[in-house]
Amino acid sequence: MKQKDKKSINNAPVEILAKKLSGSLNQVEAEIKKNIKDQEGLITITAGHLINAKGKKLRPLLTLLISRMLKYRGNSHINLAVCIEFIHNATLLHDDVIDGGKIRRGKASANQIWGNKISVLVGDYLLSKAFKLMVKNRSLKLLEILSETSLILARGQIQDVNNSLNIHLSEKKYLEIINAKTAELFRISCFLPTILTNQKKSVQKTFNDFGFNFGMAFQLSDDILDYFGNTRSMGKTIGKDFYEGKITYPMIHCYTNSSNGDKKILKSLFKKKTRSKGDLVHTLKIMEKTNTHKKSLKFMSKFLKKSKKNILKFDGNADKVYLEALVDHLLIREK
Amino acid sequence: MKQKDKKSINNAPVEILAKKLSGSLNQVEAEIKKNIKDQEGLITITAGHLINAKGKKLRPLLTLLISRMLKYRGNSHINLAVCIEFIHNATLLHDDVIDGGKIRRGKASANQIWGNKISVLVGDYLLSKAFKLMVKNRSLKLLEILSETSLILARGQIQDVNNSLNIHLSEKKYLEIINAKTAELFRISCFLPTILTNQKKSVQKTFNDFGFNFGMAFQLSDDILDYFGNTRSMGKTIGKDFYEGKITYPMIHCYTNSSNGDKKILKSLFKKKTRSKGDLVHTLKIMEKTNTHKKSLKFMSKFLKKSKKNILKFDGNADKVYLEALVDHLLIREK
Repeated sequence: MKQKDKKSINNAPVEILAKKLSGSLNQVEAEIKKNIKDQEGLITITAGHLINAKGKKLRPLLTLLISRMLKYRGNSHINLAVCIEFIHNATLLHDDVIDGGKIRRGKASANQIWGNKISVLVGDYLLSKAFKLMVKNRSLKLLEILSETSLILARGQIQDVNNSLNIHLSEKKYLEIINAKTAELFRISCFLPTILTNQKKSVQKTFNDFGFNFGMAFQLSDDILDYFGNTRSMGKTIGKDFYEGKITYPMIHCYTNSSNGDKKILKSLFKKKTRSKGDLVHTLKIMEKTNTHKKSLKFMSKFLKKSKKNILKFDGNADKVYLEALVDHLLIREK
Repeated sequence: MKQKDKKSINNAPVEILAKKLSGSLNQVEAEIKKNIKDQEGLITITAGHLINAKGKKLRPLLTLLISRMLKYRGNSHINLAVCIEFIHNATLLHDDVIDGGKIRRGKASANQIWGNKISVLVGDYLLSKAFKLMVKNRSLKLLEILSETSLILARGQIQDVNNSLNIHLSEKKYLEIINAKTAELFRISCFLPTILTNQKKSVQKTFNDFGFNFGMAFQLSDDILDYFGNTRSMGKTIGKDFYEGKITYPMIHCYTNSSNGDKKILKSLFKKKTRSKGDLVHTLKIMEKTNTHKKSLKFMSKFLKKSKKNILKFDGNADKVYLEALVDHLLIREK
């Protein structure tokens, strides 16, 4: 690959990858469209509003890319990618109900338009549809993993909600939560192609671990952007976690490393039911004192480095460059 | 069976049936307990609060009873019954969030105690667990039906929400909705034992249709009790549907058969965001004029009669009396 091409991958890896895999990605999108078409028009509209919004489809892309890297010759990776995207979107619908989210993928969220009731139920519909789709593949092994993952996602979200406002949340527990609520789905997006292609254990482990590390970094990146990101490019509101009272890595780092005086202030903020814009400005100042942005990026990059190390042995694979570019992109988007 | 025994079945069919099937019912309950035990204690507590509450476990009982009637010799009916109960309880958790339900099975509902967020997520957890459990049974046929049913339940609920306050809801559409949101799960509770026991088509149809008719009557009974029931014996609040603006059979019957003047009044009631106790009293008076209670019971009993007709050919089966007692009970509980 020429240096120039490599550079363009690094600038917009998701878009370039989507172009590269456009054949199978189009199949995935056609299947999504087909499977959200329901006799009840409201389902088609609500699910379509979310899924057709400019989501990156990062998980399906990982599944398609790794299937390609492993020279998969069948067609089951398409349904698998759709299934993973449906599970993901079901959790997004429920997340937005839970967090009172107003913007999703740069548009008004489904709960804002159709209300919480419809969002909860269309989420249920998508989850059921995901399982129904996978039954078609006739692989009990895949179904077992997918149902376990779906359960872990719910557990992670429950732990997340349960630790809201808990300023004493430990780094260890935080990592356990983001593993369950986020890394798990990335893990299987990367791992399941090894099952489809009957890989030996070592290759299974390679992509299993890559998916885990990538997923952990992804959530850390999200949590960091929530304090230090740029609203316009994200299509999300800044400080969302802070206002909701969700304790994430930057807050854990900041609290642990701040003076007793600042600790007291932070503690008082999370004893309140709501936090103001002024509270966020104040918190960001404390975060500056504790060098939280830089330290959080460093913490995240540990997972990214690990993910790159996981796929070292695939150096000879022509498509590996895309996988690496996705990893690098998580660092780049922070800037 | 002696006349005296028959009478006691008719007085408390669910309890007598539960006693009769206590061996397998205990297994079901043990499996439920085992499967809601999670590393995250809050899941165990929340799911346990709902499932251990004095629910009748009517759907599992139907599955167990029909498996017995069909001389099933395996153990898969236990997991199947648990799976059906989990799907049912997942929908109850989401229902209560959607309707703002305060009492469930005579206790405070989960959303009242732990909030909407946890209720949504524990519902997701139970749904995922249901699929995970069924994967264990290794029957793709069962998984296909269960995932399709789960999808239909969500669709039915969506149609239900979408027709809230719609005083012009037709009887046909109402029947379509209660089929999807309620009868469908009863249908498979009765139908799936025929799959477990590899029955011929005619027997499959017998229990499929029985389950459908029983389920339709069950929802009609619920909807009738909501206007004409007795709060204490139900463990539910009366007039819930009315206050929520849900249009059910009694309201459809009443509106269709009332004078133009009363139609105008009813219309205006469902144009309001909330309805008062006085509004309910007034509505009940209009329902008296249109003979709605009696007519609704008559409409429901059509389904009950059909369900009895469905199982006519099982007259020689010693356990059929329990199935029939459950049918009769739906009529009795209205009095």
